[in-house]
Amino acid sequence: MSTLQIADGAVLAADMSVRSADVLADRETGRIVEVGDTARGDEILDADSGLVIPGLVNAHCHVAMTLLRGYADDKPLDAWLREDIWPTETELETDDIVAGTRLGAVELLKNGVTALGDMYFEVPESAAALAEAGLRARVGHGIVTVGKEEVTARADFETGLDVARELDGAFDGRIATALMPHSLTTAAADLLAEYVPRAREAGIPLHYHANETRDEVEPIVEERGVRPLEYADELGMLEEGDFIAHGVHTDRTEIELLAERGVGVAHCPASNMKLASGIAPVQELLDAGVTVGIGTDGAASNNDLDAFDELRDAAMVGKLKADDASAVSAPEVVRAATAGGADLLGFDSGRIEPGALADLAVIDLEAAHLTPAHDLVSHLAYAVRGSDVRHTVVDGDVIVRDREILTLDEAAVRREAERHAESLIARAESNR
Amino acid sequence: MSTLQIADGAVLAADMSVRSADVLADRETGRIVEVGDTARGDEILDADSGLVIPGLVNAHCHVAMTLLRGYADDKPLDAWLREDIWPTETELETDDIVAGTRLGAVELLKNGVTALGDMYFEVPESAAALAEAGLRARVGHGIVTVGKEEVTARADFETGLDVARELDGAFDGRIATALMPHSLTTAAADLLAEYVPRAREAGIPLHYHANETRDEVEPIVEERGVRPLEYADELGMLEEGDFIAHGVHTDRTEIELLAERGVGVAHCPASNMKLASGIAPVQELLDAGVTVGIGTDGAASNNDLDAFDELRDAAMVGKLKADDASAVSAPEVVRAATAGGADLLGFDSGRIEPGALADLAVIDLEAAHLTPAHDLVSHLAYAVRGSDVRHTVVDGDVIVRDREILTLDEAAVRREAERHAESLIARAESNR
Ligand SMILES: [Zn+2]
Ligand SMILES: [Zn+2]
Repeated sequence: MSTLQIADGAVLAADMSVRSADVLADRETGRIVEVGDTARGDEILDADSGLVIPGLVNAHCHVAMTLLRGYADDKPLDAWLREDIWPTETELETDDIVAGTRLGAVELLKNGVTALGDMYFEVPESAAALAEAGLRARVGHGIVTVGKEEVTARADFETGLDVARELDGAFDGRIATALMPHSLTTAAADLLAEYVPRAREAGIPLHYHANETRDEVEPIVEERGVRPLEYADELGMLEEGDFIAHGVHTDRTEIELLAERGVGVAHCPASNMKLASGIAPVQELLDAGVTVGIGTDGAASNNDLDAFDELRDAAMVGKLKADDASAVSAPEVVRAATAGGADLLGFDSGRIEPGALADLAVIDLEAAHLTPAHDLVSHLAYAVRGSDVRHTVVDGDVIVRDREILTLDEAAVRREAERHAESLIARAESNR
Repeated sequence: MSTLQIADGAVLAADMSVRSADVLADRETGRIVEVGDTARGDEILDADSGLVIPGLVNAHCHVAMTLLRGYADDKPLDAWLREDIWPTETELETDDIVAGTRLGAVELLKNGVTALGDMYFEVPESAAALAEAGLRARVGHGIVTVGKEEVTARADFETGLDVARELDGAFDGRIATALMPHSLTTAAADLLAEYVPRAREAGIPLHYHANETRDEVEPIVEERGVRPLEYADELGMLEEGDFIAHGVHTDRTEIELLAERGVGVAHCPASNMKLASGIAPVQELLDAGVTVGIGTDGAASNNDLDAFDELRDAAMVGKLKADDASAVSAPEVVRAATAGGADLLGFDSGRIEPGALADLAVIDLEAAHLTPAHDLVSHLAYAVRGSDVRHTVVDGDVIVRDREILTLDEAAVRREAERHAESLIARAESNR
C-alpha cells in the first residue's frame, strides 16, 4: 500500500482553476506524483462529489489554548492576558498542554488543516502530540521575559533556542522549528540581541507577534524613535524565512521593509477583531508583494480552530479595511490559506501538483449551502465550513476519513481535555 | 401526538442562564407549556448532550437569492446590483424563486433558524414555500421604483400593498407581512407619501433598507437637508413595529430617533463587510435602547445562510466598531439573534418559557470545537456553527430531526435549484 489515489474529485489547481482529476500520492516520499486521469493507486480514497484542495495552513496558533476556549471573552488584549490568560497559564503542566494540543489537533485535522505554526510551551511534548496526530508543524517555545529576573529570562531564551535546535526535522520531518520570542514588547532587547544571532548560526528562523495592538507600537516608537519593525530589523529579526503574526498596525515603511526582507505575515483576523486590536492592511501587504498566510491564533481569542472561518473573515475584513469590496478577493484568501501559509512556514506544500507534499483535504460539495456551484473558489472563501471536510491527508496518509479522525480516539481526547481544563481552572482560581 | 417533549437537554433561558430541563410543547397551540423536570409528552425528541435554544431569527433576508450564491463576488454594492444582480433578477420567473426559496429554507432550518424576515418577489408563492418548509416569516414584496415609469412604479407599490394585506396571517399564522419599499433611495418619495398611510390603515408595518452605504446617505442629505432616517420619519416610516435593515451609517440623532420611535434594526454584518459598506454602530444602538436583530441578508452577499456565522460576525465587528473588546458581548449577540429578532418581526418567540411559541433548535455539544464547556453562551456566539444543529422545531413540530429535514426532499430541492440557477444565468447572459 505505497500509493494513495484520491479518486473522482474535482481538483483545485494553484492558479485557482478547477478540473476533474485523480491525485496520486506516494507514501514513501509523502509527495504527489501525478494529477490526472490515468493515476492508479494501491489504496483509493473516494472524492466523488468532492473538491480536492491543498490542506489549509494555520499559520499562527497556540494550539493547547483550546483548554481555555470560552473561559474569558469580551476583554481587550492586555487585560485578557494579565487577568485571565497568564495567571491560568502559569498553572499549566505538561500533561495539560498535551491534552489541549490533542484536542486542537482533532479540531484542526477535521477542519482540513494539515500544517500549522504553533507557539507555546512544553514544546517537545506538544510537538510530539501534533506529529502523532498527523499534523505538520513549525513549532517554538513562546519566550516571555517581561516581569522576569535576568536569570529566568535568560533561561527562557535558552529553552527557546534548545527546543528549536533539537526538534528541527523531528518526526520524519513533520516538525520544523523557529525561535519564537513572544513579541517585541514582551521579550527583552538585550537578550534578543544576544539570541537572535545564535539562532541564525543554527539556521533557525524567527516567528513572533508584532504590531498587534496600538499599545504595542507606541512604547517602541516613544522609547526608540523607530517603528516596531524597524526596531526588529535593527535586531536582525527580519530575514528571509522569518514570519510575524498579526502586523495590524503596520505603516507604509514597515510594509516595504517586510517586502524587501522577504518576511511574511500570519494574518489572524478573528483574533484581531475579538480583542478589538484592529484590521491588518492585507490588500496593501499583498500589493507590496508580502506573503500573507492566515492563522486562527489561539482558541481563547477566536474561539475555534475552524480555518474556513478565518478565510472568510480575512476576505470580509480585508474589504472593510481597504474600503473596497473588490479587495482581498476569494482567490486571494484561498491562496493565502494554502500556498501563502506553506510559504511562511517553509513547507513544500499548499499546492496540488507533482512534486509537492501530499497534504490535502477533500470538501464535500453535496450540501444545500454549497448549491448552486457557480464558483467553487468563492464557496471556499465564503460558504464552506470546517464541517464540510470529508477527508484530510498528510504526507499521503489518510488522517481523517469520512469525517472521522483515525490517529486519535476523539471521544477520549475530548474527555481528557475536559478533565484537564477543569483542573487547570480550579488550580488557577484557588491561587487568586 | 399532541405534545412534544424535548428531553434531557440543557436549556438556555432568556436571562442567558443554562440549566438541565425538559421542554414540553403543545402542538395545538404551537406553544411551550412547561420547562422543567416533570414534563411528559406524547412524543419525545432526544436532546441528550444537547443545548436547547430558541430558534434563531434571521431578521433580514432575500431567501431566493441562494440561486445567485457565488455568482458575483468581490464587488461594491452599487456595481454589484446594477451589473450583476438586477440584470439577472429581471429574468426571474416564479418557479425560479420558489426553487431558490426552497433551497434557502433547507439551509435555514438545518442551521437552526425558525423565523425570518424575507423581502423579495412573487411573494404569495415564496411565502407558501417558506411556510410549507416549516418556517415562520414576515414577508413582503421588494418595491423598487427607480428607473421605472410612473405607472410601473405605482403598480409595484400596489403589488406590495396587496400581498401584505392578503397574506397577513396566512398558513395558520406562520406568515406575517410588511410593506417593503427596497430603500429610501430606490423607492420614490411621492409614492411612499401615498402608500405608507395606506399601509397604516391596513395595520401593516414597514421594513426597508436604510443607511446601508454612504452613497445612500449623501444624496438624501444633499437633496433634502436631513438625515435619511429623519426623511423616513417625515414620511411616517418610523412607527412601532417597523424595522429597518442595516443602519450602518446612522448618526447620533438617528439612533435617538430609532429609540424614541421604537423602531429596530436588522444588523447584517457579513453583507456589510462583503460589500465594504461599513460597520453598524451596534453597541451604540443597544446602549440607546434600540432593539437589534441579526440578519444574513441574501446569500449572494454572504454567501450562506448560516445564522451562527452572523452571530459571530456581529460580536466580532461590534468590537472593532466600538474599539472596545467588551462591546457587543456574547450574551448580547445571542439575545439579538433570538429575542431581538423575534421582537423586530413581531413574533411571540425567541425565548424558552411557558406561553412562548415553541420555536427551538437543539445544538449538539459533543464536538471537539465545543470542548471544554466553560461557557455555553460564549460557544453559541463564537464556536457553534450551523452544522452543530441536531434538531429544529417550529410550532412544536419537528422540522429537522438528527440533521435531516423532514418537510422537503433535500436532494431534490438541491437538484431543482441547480437547474433553475443554470437556466437563469443562461437567460440573463444571453440578454447582455
Ligand atoms: Zn498569537
Ligand atoms: Zn437586503
